[in-house]
Amino acid sequence: MPRIDGERLLGDLRRIADFGRYQTGVHRPHLSPQDVESRRWLADRMKEAGLDPVIDGVGTVLGRSPKTGPRLLIGSHSDTQPRGGWLDGVMGVIYGLEVARALAEDPETAHLAVDVASWADEEGHWGQMVGSRSFVGLLDEADIDKAKHRDEGTPMREALKAAGLDGVPRAQMEEGRYRGYLEAHIEQGGLLEAGGKRIGIVTAIVGIRQFRLTFGGIQNHAGTTPMPIRKDAGVAMMRLYNDVMDEFPSVAGPRSVWTVGKMVLEPGAPAIVPGRAEMILQFRDADTKVLQAFEAKLMEIVASHQKKGPCTVECVNLSRTEPLVMDDRFLDAIEESAEAHAADLHVRMPSGAGHDAQVIGLRMPAAMMFVPSIGGISHHFTENTADEDIVLGCQVFADAAAKILKGN
Amino acid sequence: MPRIDGERLLGDLRRIADFGRYQTGVHRPHLSPQDVESRRWLADRMKEAGLDPVIDGVGTVLGRSPKTGPRLLIGSHSDTQPRGGWLDGVMGVIYGLEVARALAEDPETAHLAVDVASWADEEGHWGQMVGSRSFVGLLDEADIDKAKHRDEGTPMREALKAAGLDGVPRAQMEEGRYRGYLEAHIEQGGLLEAGGKRIGIVTAIVGIRQFRLTFGGIQNHAGTTPMPIRKDAGVAMMRLYNDVMDEFPSVAGPRSVWTVGKMVLEPGAPAIVPGRAEMILQFRDADTKVLQAFEAKLMEIVASHQKKGPCTVECVNLSRTEPLVMDDRFLDAIEESAEAHAADLHVRMPSGAGHDAQVIGLRMPAAMMFVPSIGGISHHFTENTADEDIVLGCQVFADAAAKILKGN
Repeated sequence: MPRIDGERLLGDLRRIADFGRYQTGVHRPHLSPQDVESRRWLADRMKEAGLDPVIDGVGTVLGRSPKTGPRLLIGSHSDTQPRGGWLDGVMGVIYGLEVARALAEDPETAHLAVDVASWADEEGHWGQMVGSRSFVGLLDEADIDKAKHRDEGTPMREALKAAGLDGVPRAQMEEGRYRGYLEAHIEQGGLLEAGGKRIGIVTAIVGIRQFRLTFGGIQNHAGTTPMPIRKDAGVAMMRLYNDVMDEFPSVAGPRSVWTVGKMVLEPGAPAIVPGRAEMILQFRDADTKVLQAFEAKLMEIVASHQKKGPCTVECVNLSRTEPLVMDDRFLDAIEESAEAHAADLHVRMPSGAGHDAQVIGLRMPAAMMFVPSIGGISHHFTENTADEDIVLGCQVFADAAAKILKGN
Repeated sequence: MPRIDGERLLGDLRRIADFGRYQTGVHRPHLSPQDVESRRWLADRMKEAGLDPVIDGVGTVLGRSPKTGPRLLIGSHSDTQPRGGWLDGVMGVIYGLEVARALAEDPETAHLAVDVASWADEEGHWGQMVGSRSFVGLLDEADIDKAKHRDEGTPMREALKAAGLDGVPRAQMEEGRYRGYLEAHIEQGGLLEAGGKRIGIVTAIVGIRQFRLTFGGIQNHAGTTPMPIRKDAGVAMMRLYNDVMDEFPSVAGPRSVWTVGKMVLEPGAPAIVPGRAEMILQFRDADTKVLQAFEAKLMEIVASHQKKGPCTVECVNLSRTEPLVMDDRFLDAIEESAEAHAADLHVRMPSGAGHDAQVIGLRMPAAMMFVPSIGGISHHFTENTADEDIVLGCQVFADAAAKILKGN
């Protein structure tokens, strides 16, 4: 079995955190100058590891192995949330690099091929999982033409040009090239830590459905409009949200989650009865049947509030991603490796967060592995994972990759 | 009885609407260049009417009558909300001017004295009812030192200097000078219009109590934080608001109103469990006992949510104004005059909005009169009142003033 080099792994992670360092974390949104620089560094590092790297037309770095043995694709993303953590998701990219190096260094595994990818824009500054969707053929040129930075509005074409990537071809998956795809990531939650576990074996990535609910009332003076004739859009929103919280548990699975993270009242002044209100509701589950039950329940609640009035209610679907169930044999391989290096300190769990694996997994067998996030923190510069967990995770991951590549 | 001049009244209202005209309304916040200009015009107009005008150290225009007969103070405000209406509240100021003129023109009433005021900053750009509070001794120099523009942050002292008012004395109420105070205003609501009435006789101005409720939870990833361990500040806010809407009716009076006009979730992103939430709740009633019952009920609800958790709840009082009950004899005088000019087209009603009368009324008998707002609209440039209602209102108001001044 391959032996990873923990110091080399941590050294690479610390080095790439210099690109866009922000306090104890990293600010490296996709196609920012720091991101582009980090991709060039990453390509150089892949070359040193014996891979043939390209930075493709959307910014994905793909290091292809020249070997001809059975082949795995290992990847994650090196772009970050604004002022985000230093490991989300570049840890999975450097794991891929380290696994390629470790396999090459062991005569027993030197023939096995690993391609390593850092997918463009997993964090969604320009679109949804741009790099992995481009790779599997789910992104058109027209999508790129239309893409704008979510906060600044800059066209993606301009940013690609500034990065020297205009006219560069996009990497495309070659049919039959891979046995499958592996991705490692920090947990972005506190279940491993709370359970005293060190390795999470991801059984499925949840599907997410997101809806915008808009309430139309009549804006009025809060002193002179009698209660019986009010059409208060804020009250309408609150009443519907209350029903969601009361009724969703009846159709939920054991790990379902649902969230209203955004609510807006207009005009939003203390002495004005709100004329318009809006909230975004999302729910997640690893089981499509549960997602369907949530959606049906939501439609039922919306219909009853539409009927009741006095405000109008509009419910628009913003997105629907399907759950992705991981490959059983891959999961067994990760589990065996975890048991060898961390007996009883591993657990099977779904991923509540989205990952590139749910895109790549549409086209080939895929699996994911988690390491613990200290305090469950992510999407914040204080995100961290203990060094020994980072190293252990990579060793488990390398063993699993070797097992999968050697299997029949 | 005095006869007002409808054309002169409407002419003055149209003329002053030129200062800061915005579409069909007016943008004339207190101490804006347009506001300062309009105050100089108003002072000139008062002089022409035989009054001795001053613009005082906070911008109030006070036209004192040189006559020695029994004396009334009549006023309102000529500053406006941003992009507000053309009559709110300058109509009441021009009513005062027209009443002073009409009384002077009738030999029977020529001896009666009316002082006319346009109070500074009723719309609260620099503070709460700055002009009327200054007049009755409820505003210190230190309050003015601290006052800043609510949106722009400019110190009030700077704005007063730019208006040429630094070092100018503030007008102070002289004890015993007045029989009382009258104020006319547009209704700012739709009750008169809905009831087919043309004159509102204001029995009381509501008291307003305002509270900020802050909910503290734990900010988390909306995909990876299981429902049972969440501390969702947005859910906590919604549940408490729901209880307010369920339980407030049990302690409400027939005309009570309560409103949440502002709600904020932090950080306010669809995929993040809110860690903090805030809402502003206000309630209004003309009866202090009802206000106290609302406040007690709110404290009871807050305590039960604090006990229940899982989020913290903090409830801070932002303001408490007391209801002001109008003078019975003044109300009778207005009612008699209304009956004479518009039989059966008048109604007694409380004012749900705040007015300078609730400040001046702390120191002398006071009453208010409303004319209908078309469509109940106010605080918007489309606010309007039919010309014939403006003229009728002023005639009723002038008769009432004469009656009060002639009474024993």
